[in-house]
Amino acid sequence: MTLTTTKTTYQISQPEMALAQWTRTMKRSVLREMLAVVSQPGILSFAGGLPAPELFPTADYAQAVQEVLASDPLALQYGPPYAPLKRQIVELMAQRGVYCNEDQVFLTTGAQQALNVLGRLFLDPGGQVLIEELVYSGIRQVIAPYQPEILTVSTDLEAGMEVNKVANYLGSGARPAFIYAISESHNPLGVNLSRERQEQLIELANHYGIPIIEDDPYGFLRYESTTSLPMRALDDKWVFYIGSFSKILAPALRLGWLIVPQNLISKLTVIKESYDLETSAFVQRSVSAYLKAGHLPAHLEKLRYEYGRRREAMLTALEQHFPKSARWTKPTGGMFIWVELPSQVKTAELLATCVQDIQVAFIPGAAFKVNSVSTGNHNGRMAENCLRLNFSNNSPEKISQGIAQLGKLLNQIC
Amino acid sequence: MTLTTTKTTYQISQPEMALAQWTRTMKRSVLREMLAVVSQPGILSFAGGLPAPELFPTADYAQAVQEVLASDPLALQYGPPYAPLKRQIVELMAQRGVYCNEDQVFLTTGAQQALNVLGRLFLDPGGQVLIEELVYSGIRQVIAPYQPEILTVSTDLEAGMEVNKVANYLGSGARPAFIYAISESHNPLGVNLSRERQEQLIELANHYGIPIIEDDPYGFLRYESTTSLPMRALDDKWVFYIGSFSKILAPALRLGWLIVPQNLISKLTVIKESYDLETSAFVQRSVSAYLKAGHLPAHLEKLRYEYGRRREAMLTALEQHFPKSARWTKPTGGMFIWVELPSQVKTAELLATCVQDIQVAFIPGAAFKVNSVSTGNHNGRMAENCLRLNFSNNSPEKISQGIAQLGKLLNQIC
Repeated sequence: MTLTTTKTTYQISQPEMALAQWTRTMKRSVLREMLAVVSQPGILSFAGGLPAPELFPTADYAQAVQEVLASDPLALQYGPPYAPLKRQIVELMAQRGVYCNEDQVFLTTGAQQALNVLGRLFLDPGGQVLIEELVYSGIRQVIAPYQPEILTVSTDLEAGMEVNKVANYLGSGARPAFIYAISESHNPLGVNLSRERQEQLIELANHYGIPIIEDDPYGFLRYESTTSLPMRALDDKWVFYIGSFSKILAPALRLGWLIVPQNLISKLTVIKESYDLETSAFVQRSVSAYLKAGHLPAHLEKLRYEYGRRREAMLTALEQHFPKSARWTKPTGGMFIWVELPSQVKTAELLATCVQDIQVAFIPGAAFKVNSVSTGNHNGRMAENCLRLNFSNNSPEKISQGIAQLGKLLNQIC
Repeated sequence: MTLTTTKTTYQISQPEMALAQWTRTMKRSVLREMLAVVSQPGILSFAGGLPAPELFPTADYAQAVQEVLASDPLALQYGPPYAPLKRQIVELMAQRGVYCNEDQVFLTTGAQQALNVLGRLFLDPGGQVLIEELVYSGIRQVIAPYQPEILTVSTDLEAGMEVNKVANYLGSGARPAFIYAISESHNPLGVNLSRERQEQLIELANHYGIPIIEDDPYGFLRYESTTSLPMRALDDKWVFYIGSFSKILAPALRLGWLIVPQNLISKLTVIKESYDLETSAFVQRSVSAYLKAGHLPAHLEKLRYEYGRRREAMLTALEQHFPKSARWTKPTGGMFIWVELPSQVKTAELLATCVQDIQVAFIPGAAFKVNSVSTGNHNGRMAENCLRLNFSNNSPEKISQGIAQLGKLLNQIC
């Protein structure tokens, strides 16, 4: 039998499989690896970035799904981007102070895909990108295959990205393919980019011709009445806005969107087709039906109320139980608080102790560092003694209890 | 106000936006563009690769969705690949003669994403790939950003890819990152790769250490009792198998899978996370519930019966109505028949006439050519006078009627 012959002949001197070169430096997301470790039963976890499943609008969404499957013969078929959903996103964006039209809306399979198609659009192999030293790890995963030159800037915990350092880079001749920024409720730092810095960054983008990728997954989750707007509200040429239903409806929808200049939609379409042909018509149409039924405003109110309570519970507990030497951000929205402990505390080691002794988990700050070794600058040093706490995925009671335990342990070592 | 200043200052001398270099040679898929043109109401279309929407298992799937939303609190949350679904895919693969385990199953957002993550894993910028001259356009879109050297081989309409030409390339020192192949019911050619050639190809892959990407979207849609197996049934190291629920359940699920060596799963996971974090837990769990309810075997039987009738209707109508000088493939499965007309017929021009005069559409063969100019070899020449007909998306009556009209028009010009 030929099959057997084939196997016998070659199994001894079989050649190695050649993978693309960048895979040699490929790293599993430290964050996702940690999440797997701390997701054991019995652990009170402040680690993940999970929304609260008990707040998912399951019944209303189930109704929308049933309606669509019962009445829409195209719900399970291939199809172009669903125009009614794009119009609904235009309306939603107006609530963020962004006035756009449906020809500028590009639907994606979640915000991560939005980030990835923009990487494909802008970044050449070996090109430059400009990001913060401590930042959402998904952007690092997007750029890794291009083996880019990564220019990093530090982040001020009061006013956000150090835009003057961006100016220094650009003034010295750097020409990154894009600048990645989070205007509001930064992950992991819980800080907003001040209006003044937003305007400076937009001015730099315009002057040097550098696109800004503005990631805004938490823009609709704000717990204080502030007047802040995303940068896309201030500039419609250089700011590429990323939105998502993951945090305001449910992550398993895998539905996000971009607001981009209309003339780039056809290029993005080619890229997206090569990725996954199109975003599920079933999801597009059922989310559209959910929005059409008018459920979202009350749902957002509920999320803001409940996540606001959880944030309060965490801030109060930190005040009560954490050592006086600790500092933390007070986010106006989102899901995360960033805590800085005295420099002798190494949070990577602390995590192991916490999981074992008190069954409480968080993410050590270093997991968000762009470079695995300290860069020698302020945040680079700082991250080793920092940690990120999530407040969306536990009840206020659990939060108070967990932070109290963590504080007790910290007071023994600080 | 700073914003106004920003706009005023820079709008005159605003710099151009720099995109990645490969985007200069970016092409919209000719196929997708044509589909948009011929999808007008009133057109009897044999153009697309659409499954029949009236055969979607909508009611059974709706029930599975309701069950999952009512009972599974993790259905809308982030989550790891759903193990029960992976086990169900293992069982499904056994029906294709492929014996694997769940640690070799990698879930994707449709088969297109499976293709794309493999491109990322194997292909360096400027590397080589080996594909057929006439082939599914999705593979061309995947490789385009890498600006690869594309090595093409022709396809024999009886026995599939010319594997001896693959041997010539490899013997002359070519080292493609992968070979892309469709074993059964080739899109667009409707041909199967003979068992002998499958074995030769596997032997070459083993000898030279070249992965084979085996795309098998139509493997479960077979209308004749043949004994053919996919190549993955013959080799578990070099063959990377791509499966999909798009054609056997519904495209809007965007759910596909890979069968790969277990040691590559972690690398593929990193790549996939950078693309879209994960495939929808909601879709994974609802498809798993559908499969668990035992609906698939009867559904597949129904699809095979109905698509088999449609294929018969088309083959019969071609025999009755097409000019004697025409030749076509007789696929044992899938959705497409490839027709070769006398060399003076230019099917790109014919399409315009057909759409206007008889409101019948197809895809001209040249749309599937890897290079936009003729490569001077047999298939390269042939494609200009060829066309692809889809038989899955119209009733037997419509098919008979449309092919009769097309035949009548062809008899006037051939």
